[in-house]
Amino acid sequence: MDFFRLQKISEVLGYVKKFHPLGTESVPLAAAWNRVLAAEVIAAADVPEFSRSTMDGYAVRAQDTFGAGPGNPAWLTIIGEVGMGEEARLPLAPGQAQRIATGGMLPPGADAVVMLEYTQELADQTLEVYRSVAPLENVVQQGEDVAAGSAVLPAGLRLRPQDVGLLAALGVTSVQVRRQPRVAIIATGDEIVPPEAPLQHGQMRDANSYALAAQVAAQGGEPLLLGIVPDRLEALVASVERALETMDLILLSGGSSVGTRDLTIAAIQSFPGAEILVHGVAISPGKPTILARIGAKPLFGLPGHPVSAMVVMEVLVRPVLRRLLGQTDSTPTWGRTVTASLSRNVASTPGREDFIRVRVRQDGGILRAEPVLGKSGLISTMVKADGWVRIPLNAEGLEQGERVEVLLFD
Amino acid sequence: MDFFRLQKISEVLGYVKKFHPLGTESVPLAAAWNRVLAAEVIAAADVPEFSRSTMDGYAVRAQDTFGAGPGNPAWLTIIGEVGMGEEARLPLAPGQAQRIATGGMLPPGADAVVMLEYTQELADQTLEVYRSVAPLENVVQQGEDVAAGSAVLPAGLRLRPQDVGLLAALGVTSVQVRRQPRVAIIATGDEIVPPEAPLQHGQMRDANSYALAAQVAAQGGEPLLLGIVPDRLEALVASVERALETMDLILLSGGSSVGTRDLTIAAIQSFPGAEILVHGVAISPGKPTILARIGAKPLFGLPGHPVSAMVVMEVLVRPVLRRLLGQTDSTPTWGRTVTASLSRNVASTPGREDFIRVRVRQDGGILRAEPVLGKSGLISTMVKADGWVRIPLNAEGLEQGERVEVLLFD
Repeated sequence: MDFFRLQKISEVLGYVKKFHPLGTESVPLAAAWNRVLAAEVIAAADVPEFSRSTMDGYAVRAQDTFGAGPGNPAWLTIIGEVGMGEEARLPLAPGQAQRIATGGMLPPGADAVVMLEYTQELADQTLEVYRSVAPLENVVQQGEDVAAGSAVLPAGLRLRPQDVGLLAALGVTSVQVRRQPRVAIIATGDEIVPPEAPLQHGQMRDANSYALAAQVAAQGGEPLLLGIVPDRLEALVASVERALETMDLILLSGGSSVGTRDLTIAAIQSFPGAEILVHGVAISPGKPTILARIGAKPLFGLPGHPVSAMVVMEVLVRPVLRRLLGQTDSTPTWGRTVTASLSRNVASTPGREDFIRVRVRQDGGILRAEPVLGKSGLISTMVKADGWVRIPLNAEGLEQGERVEVLLFD
Repeated sequence: MDFFRLQKISEVLGYVKKFHPLGTESVPLAAAWNRVLAAEVIAAADVPEFSRSTMDGYAVRAQDTFGAGPGNPAWLTIIGEVGMGEEARLPLAPGQAQRIATGGMLPPGADAVVMLEYTQELADQTLEVYRSVAPLENVVQQGEDVAAGSAVLPAGLRLRPQDVGLLAALGVTSVQVRRQPRVAIIATGDEIVPPEAPLQHGQMRDANSYALAAQVAAQGGEPLLLGIVPDRLEALVASVERALETMDLILLSGGSSVGTRDLTIAAIQSFPGAEILVHGVAISPGKPTILARIGAKPLFGLPGHPVSAMVVMEVLVRPVLRRLLGQTDSTPTWGRTVTASLSRNVASTPGREDFIRVRVRQDGGILRAEPVLGKSGLISTMVKADGWVRIPLNAEGLEQGERVEVLLFD
C-alpha cells in the first residue's frame, strides 16, 4: 500500500465492516439503561393483560348512559366495588355500575368508565350520571399498549429510559445486551509524563489519554489507561501485546512526530497477519491517523495534538465503537446538530475535510456559530467550543452569514 | 393553601431555590467525567510551561531564514538536536539550527521552527532552508494554551471530555465535585407488582420505577428502587421515613387514583414541618403532581401514568436535580432541541401547557414532527417517540405545517 496517499473519510469508514460486533451478556433490568440490545424483543403477552380504568369513577355499560346530561341524569344501581389489584369477578348487568379507581380492572360486562365528577351517589345504592360516555371511554383495552407477539424493540437499539420501562411492563427482568467494548489507551512519547508527576522542562503532561478515556465512556465503551510507553519499539510492542490479550480496541495516543509514527507502524507490523488499513486521512486536524487490524481487533494510532485526536475519536473511532456494539439505530444527526449562522469567513483547503471548532451563541433570536481560533495543539480551544462545523472535501471555505450545521459535543 | 388551584410550571420552578446544592467530594481525575465541578479551577502554572515545536524540523532564528526560497536557500549550521522530554539547554546563536521533533522544547535563542520538508541536510552539518519562517511560526508559546492564574473552568460546570483533558494538562489529579444526588424511588399502589412476579388478573407490573430510575441516571443522579408499598398510610410513612435517612430526593411513583393522592398528602403531613408546595400543576399530561419539602429534602408525588411521570421528570424534577448538583451552566436548549414542521393539527386546552409526543422524520430534506397519538397510560407511545413539543399555556393548539421546537429525549 501507498503510505503517503491520504484516504478520504468515506474510504476509512468503509473499513468499519471489517470488524464485527462483540459477544453478548445478560444484565439485570436495572442495569440495562444505555446498553445496546443484542436481540429483538417480542412481547410474550398483552400489556395490559386485561382492560382497565384510566380514571376514578364507575364502571358501566356505555349504552346505559346514552342521552344523560346535567338536567337529565341516568340512574344506575351500584352493585359493588372493584378492589385494586384484584380480579374483577362480579359481572355487570344492564342498569348496573361498580365503583372503580384508576388502574382497576374492568368487570365483565362493563365497557366504559364514567368519571367521578360527573356522578353523584344517592341513597339505596343509586348512582346519578350527568354525562354520557362512549364505549371504551376512560378505558385502556387489553393489549392496547403492547399486543402479544409484536416486535417492540429492535436489536441494536441503545436502550432509553422508556425502553427500560417497557421491558419492565413486559416482565423482562434480565436483558441480553452487547458486551461493552474494552478500549485500551496507550500513551506514547519520551516527553509524556503522567499528570501527577512533577513536570520537568521539556516534558508534557498526558492530557490526551484522559480526554480520550472520557470520549470512550461517552461513546459506550469501557476505557482503560495502560500508561505511558517510551519511544522504544520493544516497549511499544510489549504494551500492545498485553492490550491484545483482553481489550477489544486499542488506541495509541501521543507523539505526532515522524519518529513516533514510524515506531507505531513498526510495532503493528511486528504482529503476524497485522494489516495497516489507513496511514494518513484527508481530514484537518487529524491527518496523521493510522488504522490497523491485528487479528480481529482494530488499532488506531491517533495524532498527538489533542484537538486532532478528539476530532478523529468523533469522526472515525465512534463508528468503530458503534460497530463493536452492534448499534444499528441510525444515530440521527438531527439529534446532535444545530443550524447556526457563521459569524465570520473561514478558509479551507480543498482536498481534505476541515473540522472548525465553534462556540454557539444566541444573539437576538438568531443562533451564531463563532469559530474558535487556535492551533490544534491547544486543548483550551476545545474547552471554549460547543461543537464543530464540517467543511466538505472540495469546498474552499465558508462565508460569514452562511447557515452551517454544528455537530455538538457530547 | 388551596389544594385545587393548579400551579403554572413557572410557579413550580420558582420553588427550586428552596432547595440547596449538596455537599462536595473529591474524585480522581479518571472518574471526573460528567461530574459537576464544585469550585472554579484556576491554572496554577502556564500550559505549556515552555515554548515547544508543533512540527518535525529545525529550531532556528526566524530572521536567519528571511528571503529564503527554493532557488535561493538560506544556509545554517546544525549544532545539535533537542532530545524529546529533555530541557533544551544548548543556546542557538545567529546562523545556527538544531534538529527538533514535534513537542520538543525550543532552545534558548530560537524563535521559530522550519519544517523538515523545506530543508535538506548537506555534509559538514550544513542545512539548506528553502522557505522563510516568521517568528513564532510552528511554535506553541509558553502559556499559549493556558496562562498561569487564569480561570479555566467555572464552578457548576458538568465536565466534558476536553475539560477532563485540560485538568490533566494542568496536573490536577483529584477534582472537587458536587456529590451525586441519591434519589429514592418508592412505588405505591395495591395493584403494583415487581416485574419478576407472576402477574395476576387485576395487577400491574411496576414499569414506572424502572423508567424513572433510568431518567434519574441520565440526569446525573443515583437512583435507588425502594420497592413497592401498598396503599396503607403507615407503610408509606415508614418507607418515606427510611428514605429520608440517607436519600437526597424522594420520588413517589404509582397510583393516580384520588385515594393514592390523598394517602400521599397524609403521609407528607405526618412529618413535622413538612410543607406541601404544589398539589396539581397546569401541565398535560402530568396534572396530579405533588411537590413537598420535608426538612431540607424535596419529595415529588408523581402521576401514575407512565407518560405523565416521564414528562414531569423532564420538566420539573430535572431542574431540582440540577439545583442539588449546583449546576450553573445554562442547559442550552439549542443543544437538545430541533426545529421541525408539524405533520398535522394538534388541539390544546388553554390554561395548561401541553406536551405532545412526536416522532421526528427526515422527509425529502425537511424534518417533520409527527404526533404520536395515544393515552398517557401507554408507555409504548414514548417508545415510538423521539421527543416532545411544548404547547404554551394559552395556545389553542398548533397547525399542520407550523414550525415547532422538538425537545429531544436523552
